[in-house]
Amino acid sequence: MYPFDDKPYEECGVFGIETDHIGPQPAIDTYNALFALQHRGQHSAGMAVSDGTQIKYRKNDGLVPDVFNMDMLKTLHGHMAVGHVRYAANGGTSGVNAQPVLVEFRGEFYALVFNGSLTNARGLRDEIERAGGIFQTKGSAELILVAVLRELLKTGSLEEAVCHAMKTLGGAYSFLLMTRNKLIAARDPGGFRPLCLGDRNGAAVFASESCALDAVDARFVRDIEPGEIVVSEKGKRHSIPSGLPPRHSVCMFEFVYFARPDSVIDGLSVELARQAAGRCLARQDNIEGDIVVGVPDSGMSSAVGYARESGIPYQKGFVKNRYIGRTFIQATHGERVTSLNIKLNAVKAVVEGKRVVLVDDSIVRGTTIARVVSVLRAAGAREIHMRVSSPPFLYPCHFGTDIPTRDDLIAARHTFSEIEKKIGVDSLRFLRLEDLGEMLRGLNISWCDACFTGKYPVPVPPNG
Amino acid sequence: MYPFDDKPYEECGVFGIETDHIGPQPAIDTYNALFALQHRGQHSAGMAVSDGTQIKYRKNDGLVPDVFNMDMLKTLHGHMAVGHVRYAANGGTSGVNAQPVLVEFRGEFYALVFNGSLTNARGLRDEIERAGGIFQTKGSAELILVAVLRELLKTGSLEEAVCHAMKTLGGAYSFLLMTRNKLIAARDPGGFRPLCLGDRNGAAVFASESCALDAVDARFVRDIEPGEIVVSEKGKRHSIPSGLPPRHSVCMFEFVYFARPDSVIDGLSVELARQAAGRCLARQDNIEGDIVVGVPDSGMSSAVGYARESGIPYQKGFVKNRYIGRTFIQATHGERVTSLNIKLNAVKAVVEGKRVVLVDDSIVRGTTIARVVSVLRAAGAREIHMRVSSPPFLYPCHFGTDIPTRDDLIAARHTFSEIEKKIGVDSLRFLRLEDLGEMLRGLNISWCDACFTGKYPVPVPPNG
Amino acid sequence: MYPFDDKPYEECGVFGIETDHIGPQPAIDTYNALFALQHRGQHSAGMAVSDGTQIKYRKNDGLVPDVFNMDMLKTLHGHMAVGHVRYAANGGTSGVNAQPVLVEFRGEFYALVFNGSLTNARGLRDEIERAGGIFQTKGSAELILVAVLRELLKTGSLEEAVCHAMKTLGGAYSFLLMTRNKLIAARDPGGFRPLCLGDRNGAAVFASESCALDAVDARFVRDIEPGEIVVSEKGKRHSIPSGLPPRHSVCMFEFVYFARPDSVIDGLSVELARQAAGRCLARQDNIEGDIVVGVPDSGMSSAVGYARESGIPYQKGFVKNRYIGRTFIQATHGERVTSLNIKLNAVKAVVEGKRVVLVDDSIVRGTTIARVVSVLRAAGAREIHMRVSSPPFLYPCHFGTDIPTRDDLIAARHTFSEIEKKIGVDSLRFLRLEDLGEMLRGLNISWCDACFTGKYPVPVPPNG
Amino acid sequence: MYPFDDKPYEECGVFGIETDHIGPQPAIDTYNALFALQHRGQHSAGMAVSDGTQIKYRKNDGLVPDVFNMDMLKTLHGHMAVGHVRYAANGGTSGVNAQPVLVEFRGEFYALVFNGSLTNARGLRDEIERAGGIFQTKGSAELILVAVLRELLKTGSLEEAVCHAMKTLGGAYSFLLMTRNKLIAARDPGGFRPLCLGDRNGAAVFASESCALDAVDARFVRDIEPGEIVVSEKGKRHSIPSGLPPRHSVCMFEFVYFARPDSVIDGLSVELARQAAGRCLARQDNIEGDIVVGVPDSGMSSAVGYARESGIPYQKGFVKNRYIGRTFIQATHGERVTSLNIKLNAVKAVVEGKRVVLVDDSIVRGTTIARVVSVLRAAGAREIHMRVSSPPFLYPCHFGTDIPTRDDLIAARHTFSEIEKKIGVDSLRFLRLEDLGEMLRGLNISWCDACFTGKYPVPVPPNG
Repeated sequence: MYPFDDKPYEECGVFGIETDHIGPQPAIDTYNALFALQHRGQHSAGMAVSDGTQIKYRKNDGLVPDVFNMDMLKTLHGHMAVGHVRYAANGGTSGVNAQPVLVEFRGEFYALVFNGSLTNARGLRDEIERAGGIFQTKGSAELILVAVLRELLKTGSLEEAVCHAMKTLGGAYSFLLMTRNKLIAARDPGGFRPLCLGDRNGAAVFASESCALDAVDARFVRDIEPGEIVVSEKGKRHSIPSGLPPRHSVCMFEFVYFARPDSVIDGLSVELARQAAGRCLARQDNIEGDIVVGVPDSGMSSAVGYARESGIPYQKGFVKNRYIGRTFIQATHGERVTSLNIKLNAVKAVVEGKRVVLVDDSIVRGTTIARVVSVLRAAGAREIHMRVSSPPFLYPCHFGTDIPTRDDLIAARHTFSEIEKKIGVDSLRFLRLEDLGEMLRGLNISWCDACFTGKYPVPVPPNG
Repeated sequence: MYPFDDKPYEECGVFGIETDHIGPQPAIDTYNALFALQHRGQHSAGMAVSDGTQIKYRKNDGLVPDVFNMDMLKTLHGHMAVGHVRYAANGGTSGVNAQPVLVEFRGEFYALVFNGSLTNARGLRDEIERAGGIFQTKGSAELILVAVLRELLKTGSLEEAVCHAMKTLGGAYSFLLMTRNKLIAARDPGGFRPLCLGDRNGAAVFASESCALDAVDARFVRDIEPGEIVVSEKGKRHSIPSGLPPRHSVCMFEFVYFARPDSVIDGLSVELARQAAGRCLARQDNIEGDIVVGVPDSGMSSAVGYARESGIPYQKGFVKNRYIGRTFIQATHGERVTSLNIKLNAVKAVVEGKRVVLVDDSIVRGTTIARVVSVLRAAGAREIHMRVSSPPFLYPCHFGTDIPTRDDLIAARHTFSEIEKKIGVDSLRFLRLEDLGEMLRGLNISWCDACFTGKYPVPVPPNG
Repeated sequence: MYPFDDKPYEECGVFGIETDHIGPQPAIDTYNALFALQHRGQHSAGMAVSDGTQIKYRKNDGLVPDVFNMDMLKTLHGHMAVGHVRYAANGGTSGVNAQPVLVEFRGEFYALVFNGSLTNARGLRDEIERAGGIFQTKGSAELILVAVLRELLKTGSLEEAVCHAMKTLGGAYSFLLMTRNKLIAARDPGGFRPLCLGDRNGAAVFASESCALDAVDARFVRDIEPGEIVVSEKGKRHSIPSGLPPRHSVCMFEFVYFARPDSVIDGLSVELARQAAGRCLARQDNIEGDIVVGVPDSGMSSAVGYARESGIPYQKGFVKNRYIGRTFIQATHGERVTSLNIKLNAVKAVVEGKRVVLVDDSIVRGTTIARVVSVLRAAGAREIHMRVSSPPFLYPCHFGTDIPTRDDLIAARHTFSEIEKKIGVDSLRFLRLEDLGEMLRGLNISWCDACFTGKYPVPVPPNG
Repeated sequence: MYPFDDKPYEECGVFGIETDHIGPQPAIDTYNALFALQHRGQHSAGMAVSDGTQIKYRKNDGLVPDVFNMDMLKTLHGHMAVGHVRYAANGGTSGVNAQPVLVEFRGEFYALVFNGSLTNARGLRDEIERAGGIFQTKGSAELILVAVLRELLKTGSLEEAVCHAMKTLGGAYSFLLMTRNKLIAARDPGGFRPLCLGDRNGAAVFASESCALDAVDARFVRDIEPGEIVVSEKGKRHSIPSGLPPRHSVCMFEFVYFARPDSVIDGLSVELARQAAGRCLARQDNIEGDIVVGVPDSGMSSAVGYARESGIPYQKGFVKNRYIGRTFIQATHGERVTSLNIKLNAVKAVVEGKRVVLVDDSIVRGTTIARVVSVLRAAGAREIHMRVSSPPFLYPCHFGTDIPTRDDLIAARHTFSEIEKKIGVDSLRFLRLEDLGEMLRGLNISWCDACFTGKYPVPVPPNG
């Protein structure tokens, strides 16, 4: 069952495609793309498909392969589609909150998918409610769609309506809006969340990450620019500037952890950014280690970078059980606690007696890494030197990531030496703030690092 | 996958309860009641529970036991609940269209469940859209809730808002509207669809049929009157007349087929009405039969009435496989067609060589009864005299039942003797229109028989 | 999980078919037939199909539609098949214990399905173990198959091996044994459990009950005689007498409760036997009742007979929820107990103020009928006169039915007037032993009534 | 559905534990251990638990988390348990063939789990059948258990029976045999398949791989020696030599691919053996590459070794979708073929324009690696030099691995330069046979490399 008051923000992935041929292909493409974006949201999945006359859809709780099957996809005929994977911030989730959000309004159909978090959601919603608007979800996707349609009543042009609505939206948003014959992509002026454009034999493809373009064999064309609107209709694409001054604040966390390493965002390869962070760490370091080990899977890229820079050999210190799924049994009370090594076991022959440089991408609450460290200790590691390829998290995020409140951030409440003790390592170092520039060298636009600095690029609600 | 354009009408069942104690009981009661109302809708089920502070809900496609389980119910704590089972007219169905419809509006939560069909849905929706309203479903439940909330903006009182909204609604509707602390029941001025009030130790209980009161051990108090609004709040109930002139046109079809025989609607027992129809048929009849056999389960009650009036012995001529569920295999092509006798077998020892008076409640398309007759023939019945305990269906319904268009109604396209041949019986008789009064003796209010007469009690759309 | 020590006896249903054409039809027929026999066993289902070269099979826990689906059936190509539904006596069940039992032995394949209970299972098993035989289940099906194959080692002829093995088997057994090209049916000399032969365009069909012949559109040919062996091979059938003296003791309980009313067993229609029992009850009775009501579904046939003989009108006093399945929620502790009327509700309009003659087929423990009576009382029945269409159960069964030990048999521990009080009726009568002859008039062979009389037709184990 | 003639050989994993306390812990341990051994068999899973009085079991098709849940485990009380995961060689699989195999024989219960493949299965089976033995499966587990029990009839001692039976068994076998109070582990004289002994606070633990000891927090004690029998009973363990001359031929393939890298087998770490193979490859190589990339996950360890030896930087050239499960949709015909990059995408930023040394563990049919290469090409790799960390497969395996017949082995039918073309690489090298000694340095016993050399250490069937 679901509480009605889901937190409004969500980590998500979006995808859209416009082809020139009606058939099952757009639905199958969307399936493949959503599967490639699955890491951006595991709680629900959905897609809507247009054949020019009507829009059919399917959405529900669950992973992409749980929500769709081939028989279903083959009946979702159309020439356009939008799709969505959703992460529900507080565990509360519901097929009802799944995206796309769909509306039939004055004879046209609208399907919207959204990634981000509006900073002024409450105020905007109150304003629309005062004007008679009625909402069925707490979700920002519904809010954005209603805001656009209310502007549409005034302007008559959907493109203008999107422009006008964007002027009222605060915070982070990348969205795709599909009617029966048109696909509109929009990215907020800060460009907090990624959104890119691809092309497959003339078909327009939009996706949160470029790895989804690869999944449908589309060629990467370019990133949607902060504050830009791109319209694809009948095989033609054109760009509309929203007129909002771009502030360029793409989310650091995409490079640190969230995006897939094979994606390229705003000109920078995620994999290379992570390796660069590892190299920076090594350059500042003077520890004598025997091997460098990355925490699977999040610390692997940085560990490769660290090893290469330091000359300390890179090693596979862990084996991750590749059958881990959502159904794993939890031995809760009384019985011997299921140790973490069910999921992640250390390779004793590799780590025993060694001084291990252990690399991970970030430390949030510190509980998981403490268990990882204990597995390494049990396998006989002599010393463990933790190296974190991002600065310490000190401030909550208001732009669509699930970084918790300060009370839960271990680095906000403890000194480094306290953290060392809590997680059981011999030494601990984080990436320095001043190294972010090195890590993100090659990024086309500026970034948001408010979670490290507290310097939010746009106004945020008082108690987020 | 779901087409966006679900037909707006639905056969459904609703239930609501207000108790004075917060706990899992209202959710469990709603489960039991929905299970008793399962015959009114098998496509989706849902409930919302209020604990005075928040409203939690659960709804999805499927039968009641598919959508809920005990672990789930035990977490749905509250003192009030509303629930719904839904029949999707055209097979198109979706967890998204499941009821209750939920809205958070200006700090209050609203959950609405609905049974019926609005005759002016399109016009009403267009009007609200022109005023800026935006809809996410084609469903009348959302339409009614939006209509009420728009009135609420004007009046400030929810009860008044319901009154005002009812003045704009045409056709058939029984609905329950729950806020965090209030439960409102409303029945349209025609009283097309049933709605009754029960009491369990002071707790108010509302249900589409009295059999759901039995399922929660509640005492039947009375039917909600056509055009009446009943409010239950903090253990107190009061009635508000809507001010709409009652037209009294409860649906005949509830007595013919739809309602459960153990329900009492507007003062008349469904079982006794069906038996009375059987008696009327016998009184008009001069056929010489050896046995009277009812088609399971729909013709059993009328067959008992016919047998008693005619003196011809009642017999169980069929055995219905009691394990039939939704999962039964269909042998489609090539293989020997799965004969109907998998589901329904004739008792040869009973029917062989006999002149059978075969009683069923209605004939719509005529395809199923033709197969039943062939099973009886194969078992050796000498003569088969079909007696139908309702007049022939000639006109479509606009008030929430799934009677098809004239093109599909066998009686609208064929003479009686053609039908006899098509379904393979030796003689065929329907209940006479003038016998409806006898069948429905004891009903407190007038009834709608437009499906037999074409005389619709309220204006209906030109091509329904 | 399953205890290893399943009780060895089982209530079951068997089916077999030999056609002259290889394809999916025999598997589909077996599916349909097992579905018709589902009432004989709901715990597991299975079938084996031979195409002359190999035998494929599928068996598992669950109802027939749970174990099989059409895709699966279409791959089970063959010209012969045997199938089984199984009731596990003590709730313990396992896909491993499901039948058919399969063996590959000296280059031939054997599949056996079985209904009954061996009285000398323990002794026979010990004997075979002493000779080096090894068993993987406690089931009698495996025991019979091993016994046959051990005889086969001696004789070389499978038919003779079956004959010889039958001489060693005590108690009740009907079984079908399929090799790649032969189908053998055998019924014990007592004929405790039913087994009949049908024909469909030359194809031989065997089934526990004739209702399964109807389900595959086969014509009933005759019952397999007690002690008879029938072999079907390449479209030809011949009968082999086992040489065992037939004792003719078909189980009464098949007619009282177990078999489907549309089946005919050893010449007698189950439905007519039940009606005859009702008529006997009425003939002995002098109660003044207003209506006769049968307990669904088991008492319906007898109620029809009682009503007809007594002249008291037959009425449908109950409505059974037709969506009841295995998944129904049990409100266990704390919450208001889910009353029986969720499954079975009384029709108040029919029973209120009435003197009800309530007819059921049997009373074993008395707990269920007490709840049924209380539902009737709550609906306002003035008097309730219980009439049971079988004599009181006083002795346990050793021949394959699940009648419990004397300690659980209400009639074995209480006087009639005590039972009246316990179940809450105004009067109680059972069918008299001397009326069994009348009830079973038309039966070709003698019957076993040991559960009423304690006179077992064959020796039984000391403490069964 | 399942053909009756499953191929008799199986890749599997076994686990057993004897504790001194009755409770759910042994079942939970077995669950965790089987989960750690899941890579050894994904088709079925099972366990049997003894509490000293009875043995309960559960086995079925499916992955470990599909077959078991916590509620189930908590009811499997006992002090001992054995468990099994099974890979069905030809796709044919059945809950019926799942292990453990269970037998009740002369008042004792026996549960056996087995990994390996008997080379004389057919002959042994024929011999036992001639002596009256009857089998229900084609599986070698049943065959071994029957062989042991037949010896038990002669000797009276289970330990002796195991000894005697082992003298009749040819080929590869590691098995665990549990009675109500005793746990016996045996490994064939060749030691083809691994089996090790662990200890947790005095409790004896047996497992196919040491990673399963880690999963239950047990300490590795030692490998069971080829030809050794270890008995654990009431907390005491003793070793019995089988008397068979040990031939020491542990399977190479365990080190090449099959075992988990965190396991240690016969004294050698699997991870280190793979790295050593990579180092050997590099040492023989003179290619000029820019980066070394391993094929996930099988080539990662060797790639690390290659990179270290060669000095060419190790890189993560691929991203594997971590949500890949068994349910992934296959776009079969008509639609754009789902490219491999759904599962495995290249990191363009890493490989573009690079000369890639691509390392994998083995090439069997060559189809998968061809697709991996094409993904790398599409991402812009300039040159691709394939390095395989095992010699070419030329001969089928008869000892329990799924290496296909010669017709399917690409290296048996093609020259190296043909293979280069078929898989699309610029150069191709395999590990040299003479380097196996270097790779397996540290292994306590000799190994079997018949799949590379055709020199089978024991006689094998003529056409396997």
